[in-house]
Amino acid sequence: MCLLVCAAGAHAEDGYDLWLRYRPIEGPWAMRYRSFSTEVVAAPGENLAAQELLRGMTGLLAVTPAVGRRITRDGAIVLGTPGSSADLGAFAADLETLGSEGYLIRSIRVHGHRATLVAANSNVGLLYGVFGFLRLLQTRQSLEALNVREAPHIPHRILNHWDNLDGTIERGYAGASIWDWQTLPDYLEPRYADYARACASIGINGAVLNNVNANAVSLTPQYLEKAAALARVFRPYGIKVYLSARFTAPIEIGGLHTADPLDDAVRAWWQHKVAEIYRVIPDFGGFLVKANSEGQPGPQDYGRSHADGANMLAAVLAPHRGSVMWRAFVYSAHQNEDRTRQAYDEFVPLDGQFDANVLLQVKNGPIDFQPREPGHPLFGAMPKTPLMLEVQITKEYLGFATHLVYLGPLYEEALRFDTHRQGLGSSISKVIDGMAGVSNIGAMRNWTGSQFDQANWYAFGRLAWNPETSSRAIAEEWVRMTFSNDTRFVAPTVAMMMGSREAAVDYMTPLGLAHLMAAGHHYGPGPWQSGGARADWTPPYYHRADAEGIGADRSTGAGSNSVSQYAQPLAAQYDDPKLTPEKYLLWFHHLSWDYPMPSGRTLWDELVMHYSRGVEYVQEMRRTWATLAPYVDSDRYAETSAYLAIQEKEARWWRDACIAYFQSLSKRPLPKGLAPPEHTLAEYEAISTPYAPGNPGWTAAPVRH
Amino acid sequence: MCLLVCAAGAHAEDGYDLWLRYRPIEGPWAMRYRSFSTEVVAAPGENLAAQELLRGMTGLLAVTPAVGRRITRDGAIVLGTPGSSADLGAFAADLETLGSEGYLIRSIRVHGHRATLVAANSNVGLLYGVFGFLRLLQTRQSLEALNVREAPHIPHRILNHWDNLDGTIERGYAGASIWDWQTLPDYLEPRYADYARACASIGINGAVLNNVNANAVSLTPQYLEKAAALARVFRPYGIKVYLSARFTAPIEIGGLHTADPLDDAVRAWWQHKVAEIYRVIPDFGGFLVKANSEGQPGPQDYGRSHADGANMLAAVLAPHRGSVMWRAFVYSAHQNEDRTRQAYDEFVPLDGQFDANVLLQVKNGPIDFQPREPGHPLFGAMPKTPLMLEVQITKEYLGFATHLVYLGPLYEEALRFDTHRQGLGSSISKVIDGMAGVSNIGAMRNWTGSQFDQANWYAFGRLAWNPETSSRAIAEEWVRMTFSNDTRFVAPTVAMMMGSREAAVDYMTPLGLAHLMAAGHHYGPGPWQSGGARADWTPPYYHRADAEGIGADRSTGAGSNSVSQYAQPLAAQYDDPKLTPEKYLLWFHHLSWDYPMPSGRTLWDELVMHYSRGVEYVQEMRRTWATLAPYVDSDRYAETSAYLAIQEKEARWWRDACIAYFQSLSKRPLPKGLAPPEHTLAEYEAISTPYAPGNPGWTAAPVRH
Repeated sequence: MCLLVCAAGAHAEDGYDLWLRYRPIEGPWAMRYRSFSTEVVAAPGENLAAQELLRGMTGLLAVTPAVGRRITRDGAIVLGTPGSSADLGAFAADLETLGSEGYLIRSIRVHGHRATLVAANSNVGLLYGVFGFLRLLQTRQSLEALNVREAPHIPHRILNHWDNLDGTIERGYAGASIWDWQTLPDYLEPRYADYARACASIGINGAVLNNVNANAVSLTPQYLEKAAALARVFRPYGIKVYLSARFTAPIEIGGLHTADPLDDAVRAWWQHKVAEIYRVIPDFGGFLVKANSEGQPGPQDYGRSHADGANMLAAVLAPHRGSVMWRAFVYSAHQNEDRTRQAYDEFVPLDGQFDANVLLQVKNGPIDFQPREPGHPLFGAMPKTPLMLEVQITKEYLGFATHLVYLGPLYEEALRFDTHRQGLGSSISKVIDGMAGVSNIGAMRNWTGSQFDQANWYAFGRLAWNPETSSRAIAEEWVRMTFSNDTRFVAPTVAMMMGSREAAVDYMTPLGLAHLMAAGHHYGPGPWQSGGARADWTPPYYHRADAEGIGADRSTGAGSNSVSQYAQPLAAQYDDPKLTPEKYLLWFHHLSWDYPMPSGRTLWDELVMHYSRGVEYVQEMRRTWATLAPYVDSDRYAETSAYLAIQEKEARWWRDACIAYFQSLSKRPLPKGLAPPEHTLAEYEAISTPYAPGNPGWTAAPVRH
Repeated sequence: MCLLVCAAGAHAEDGYDLWLRYRPIEGPWAMRYRSFSTEVVAAPGENLAAQELLRGMTGLLAVTPAVGRRITRDGAIVLGTPGSSADLGAFAADLETLGSEGYLIRSIRVHGHRATLVAANSNVGLLYGVFGFLRLLQTRQSLEALNVREAPHIPHRILNHWDNLDGTIERGYAGASIWDWQTLPDYLEPRYADYARACASIGINGAVLNNVNANAVSLTPQYLEKAAALARVFRPYGIKVYLSARFTAPIEIGGLHTADPLDDAVRAWWQHKVAEIYRVIPDFGGFLVKANSEGQPGPQDYGRSHADGANMLAAVLAPHRGSVMWRAFVYSAHQNEDRTRQAYDEFVPLDGQFDANVLLQVKNGPIDFQPREPGHPLFGAMPKTPLMLEVQITKEYLGFATHLVYLGPLYEEALRFDTHRQGLGSSISKVIDGMAGVSNIGAMRNWTGSQFDQANWYAFGRLAWNPETSSRAIAEEWVRMTFSNDTRFVAPTVAMMMGSREAAVDYMTPLGLAHLMAAGHHYGPGPWQSGGARADWTPPYYHRADAEGIGADRSTGAGSNSVSQYAQPLAAQYDDPKLTPEKYLLWFHHLSWDYPMPSGRTLWDELVMHYSRGVEYVQEMRRTWATLAPYVDSDRYAETSAYLAIQEKEARWWRDACIAYFQSLSKRPLPKGLAPPEHTLAEYEAISTPYAPGNPGWTAAPVRH
C-alpha cells in the first residue's frame, strides 16, 4: 500500500532532496542508531535544530522520538546552547573557543543515562551541529564515544548568485532564477526555505542575491522589500543577505549627476540608501561590487581609485557592521598589458589603503575560472588587505551542467596553492577571510542542472568550512548521502568523480592552455575564433599558436613577465620551462611543437595524447556508470547516463576540433595509434550554437570564424 | 511508516500532478469502484492505455488488477480496438462513426460476466477513453449502466508555445520553457512525457513548439533533431509536433537573397526543408506562421498577398499531409485605419484563394486577448476558408499567474458568440476546424505559474474537444480532480472561479474598455501612457477618454465603422449605443460621462461602480478561500492565499489608478459611498515595473508617462 501510494506521487527521486535525502537506512544500522535516538532534549528556542533532527530521525530511522526538557532514559540526544535547559557547565570552556558558529558533538552520561550532546553557542551553531550529527548517520558512522569539535576556518562562506531581475541567470545552466521577483515579497515559495536549509547544512552563511553585473533597480524600495522577505526566510538558517551594488546607482535611481565616490552628495545618497536597507534588513551583510571591469562603471570613471570607491561604501556600511566585497576581477580597457598581470598591477599598490570592512574578492586564478589556472598572484601579495577567494561552482568554462566534472579537486588545488609569500606552506587557504562561490543553482528540479553538479555546491560549502578537508573525503560523504552507502557504488563513483576534473582539463585545455572556448557563451571549442570587441576575449590571445609552436610567453625575457608577480621560488620556476610544472607549461611559455617533454614525447605529441586521454576518461566513466544501475533509482540513473553520453560526444568534439585546428598550424602528424579528427577543421568552425544557455547579452559581440 | 516515508519525500502536493492526481479515494466509493476493476483485458498494442488505467487503479483504488487477454470474472475492464483481442463485433457500427479519436465506454456482459468496455478505433482513442473512464472515478460518478460515446467536435486542438530558443517564453508566467533545447535530443526529461500525458488526458492533439515570433534557427538540422526527439515522446499520446516558421528563413538560414513566395528558388528551398523535416518527423503537423504582423517578415514585403505566402507553404506541405496555420493577427504598419478593422479588411477579400490545407488562425476578438472583446468579425465572413479560433491560456492581459481568473467563461463566450452569418445560432464554434491555445506552461513545478491556472489549460482542452460543454461543468470536474470531491469545497470553489473573469473585466476594463494595460509587459494599469513606437500599442488609442467622455467610436457615423464588419442584426445593434450590450458599450461608442445607463446611473458612476465591484469580488474570493483550508493541503492552500492577496492588492491598484486617471479628465465626483483612490494620479503614473515577466524585447520601446 505504501509503495503504491508513494509511487502515485511525484517523481520522488528527481534530486530535489539533494544530500539531505533522509531515506530509511538498512535494518542493522537503523537498529543500532535507534538506541541513540530514544528522545530529544531541547529548549523551545532551539526549534529549527530540533525540527531538523526529528526530520532526520523520521526519514532515516522511521522513529519520531519525543521531545522534552529533561533526560529520562538512555539514548537521548541533547541539544544545548548556553542558557538552554541542558546543563553545559562541563563544556563551557570548550564552547567559549568555538565562536558563534562552531559546535560540539559528545557522547556523555547524565545521571547515569547514556546520551549524545550537540552543543553550540547559538541556534545556528546548533543547527550546524544537528546537520553534522545526521551526517554521521547518513554516512553510516558509529555513534559511540563521539568527540566532535567543529568550527569554521573561514568566516565568510558566501554564494554569489549571478541572477538577473528578469529571471535569467548569467552563466546559469539550471533554468531560471529561484528568486521569483515578480511574486516577492508577497509569496514565499517553499523552495526559499529549502535553499536556506541546504546551504546551512554545509555551513554557507551568506548569499549575494543578484548578478555582479548589477542593476541599480535592485536597490529601489520595491526590490529591497523583496530582498528583505528572502532575508526573513534565511535568517533562522544563519544566512545573511548581500546585494551586488551598481556603482552608478546614485545616478540611475538617485537622480544625481555623478557617482564620484568623493562627491558629498554621492556619499550622502549611499548613506541614506544603506540606512534604508538596514531598516528592512537589520542584519544585511553588505555589498558586492564589480567596478571598472568588463564595462561596469566604477570609481576610475571619475579619476578615483578602487580604494576610493570601496572605502566610500565601506564607510557608510561600517556603522551597521556591513562589509564591502570588492572584486579584483578587473582588466584594463586598453588591453596593452597581458591580461593575467592587470589585477595584480592595479591592486598591489593599494594594499593598506582599504578600510577594515573591505574584502577584496579575488578569483582563484589570474584569468577567469578556467579548467586549470595557477594561483592568483594577488594572494599573499596584499598582506594588509582582507582577501576572499572567488571560485565558480557553475561550470561556465567546464562543459556546463552536462559534463560530469567534480570541482572539489579544483577548489582544493586553489586553496592549497602555495604562494611561498611567507615561505614554504603559504597556501592561499591561510590568507583568506572568505570564500565566494558563483552559484550553479536554478529553478530546475535538481537545483543545479544535473545530479552530479550538486556535489560542487556541496564541496564548496564543506571546503569553505574547512579547507583542510580532502576533496576525496567530501566526494565520498556526498555520494553516501546523495545516492547510496553501498561500497560497490561508493568506491567506483568517488573514483570517477575524482579524475573527472583532470579529464576536462585534458580534453579542453591541457598543459596550461586556457580560454579556448567559443566566444560569448563559452560552450564548446573555438580556438580559431578571433576578432570581436576585445582581443582578450578570444582564444588566440591565450594560446598564441603558430607554425612554430604554442603557448603564451609570460616569462621575464621576451614575455610579459607576469612570472615576476609570484614570490620566489615560484617566479624562477615559472620563468624556466624546464622547471615549470607541466600542468602550467603553456600558461607561461611559448614552445616549439617539437619541444621535448619529460615523457620523451614532443610537445605536439604530448598535447594530442592529453586530448585523447581526456576523451578516454569520459568513455571510462560511461562504462563505470553502466555497471551502477542496480544502486540508483531509474530517473537519476537515466539522467546521468544521458549526460555522460553528451559529455563523451562533446569531449570528442573538443579533442577533434582543437587537434584539427592546432594541426593546421603545427603541420605535424598525429602520434601513432591516435585517431584523426572525425571532421575537417572547416566543419568544426562552422558549428554554431548561438542559444547555448547562460550567455549574457553583453558578450555577444560577433567574432570572426 | 507509510506516512513517514511519504512525508520524507518531495513536496507531493505542489501541483505537479495536475488533474491527474490519482490519490486514494474515500472508502465507500473505493469499495464500490473496486468491484468494477477486478481485472484488465488488453492486447499488447494497447500498452499506454492499459498502463494509464493501472496507474489510475493503483493510485485511486490501491489495487493493481491483473492484465490478461480474456475475461475471467465479473468486473473486468476491457480495452478494445478493432483487431485487438476484445470481440468488438457488437460495436463495429458504433465505432465506425467515431473517427480515429473517439471512444465508447459501455457496461457490457460477456459470457455472463459483468464488464466495462472501453473501445476506440486507435490506441490514442483508447487512451482518451481510459482518461474518460478514470475521470468518472475521479469525479465520483457511478460506473453502472455506462453508455458514453465521445468524439472530438473540433479536429485541430493545439497548444501554441511562445517559447524561445534561449529558454525564455514570450508572455510566459511560469518560469523558463519546459523544452531544454540545450540537452535535447540527447536527454529526454521525464517531464516531456508528463506534459504529453496531461495534454492527452484532455484531448489536445498538437503542439507548436516555438514562438510565433519565430527564429529561423528552429528549422536548422540541429534543432529539427531536437523537435524530432520531442515528437517521438509525444507520438504515443496522439500529439503532433508543429513549428512556427519564420518567413525569411530561406534568407537567414538558406543563403538565398529573397523570401519571395513566388520565387522558384524560395519554393524549392521550402520544398527541400519540408522533406528534410518529414524525414525526421514523419507525422509532422505543419507550420504556424505570423507574417507581416508586428514587425515579422511576410509575403507583403515582396508585394505578395497572405494567400500567396500561405499557399506556397501549403503546396510544399500538402504531399506530406501537413497544414499551414496562417495567423490573421495582422494590423497595418501605417496605422491609418482603426486597428479592429484591419484583419477583416485584409483577409475577407482573400476568401476562396487559400489552398485546402491552409487554416486561418483568428484570435477570439479583433484586438488582442483582452479581458473581454466582441467576437472577431472574420468568423463566419470567410465561408470558403477553414478557420481556427486562437485564444490565450496564458494571462498576458489578465493579471499574469497571480490573478485567479478562470478563463472557461471567456472561451465559452467566444465559442458561443453568435455571428448571425447564417442566421440566429451561427456561433463561432460551428465554423471552426481548430482551436489554438497560447500555452501558459513553464518549468515551474506547478506547470502554469499557479494552481488555479491549471484550470485554464484544462478548460481549453475540454472545450476544444466539445465546445458545447459548459465552463461551469468543466470547472467542477477540474476542482474535483485537482483538489477534492467534498461538496463543501467544490461548490464555493466553482462559484469563486465562475465569477472571476467578470471580476477581472470589472477591475481592469469594464463596459467594453480594452487595452488599458501598461505598455510592453502589460502588467498593471497604464491608461495614461502614450507615445512610443506605435499609437495602437498605447491605451489612449483604445479608451479615447477626454473631458467630454470615453470610448472608441466604431459606429457608422463619425466612427471607424468597424460595426459594419458584423452581420445583421449585430451591425445595427452595435451601431446604436442604446442597443449595444453594455459589456461592449465603450468598445463601439464614445459617450458622454453623463450618458444615462440602463441602471439609471450616469456612465461615469457606472464605470466607477464596475471598478469597485471587481475589487469587491476579489475580496469575496479571499474570504471564501479562507474558509477552505480544511480541504486543501497546506502548500497549495498557502500559494493560493498569497496569490489572492496579491490579486486584491493589484485589483485595487487597477481600480484606483484607472479612476484617478479618468477622473482627471471627467472632473466628476465619485458616486456616494465609494472610496477615492488611495494615491494621487502622479503616484500611480510613477509606478514602474520594468522586469515584469514575459515581456519580449521587441515591445520595450519607451512610452511617455
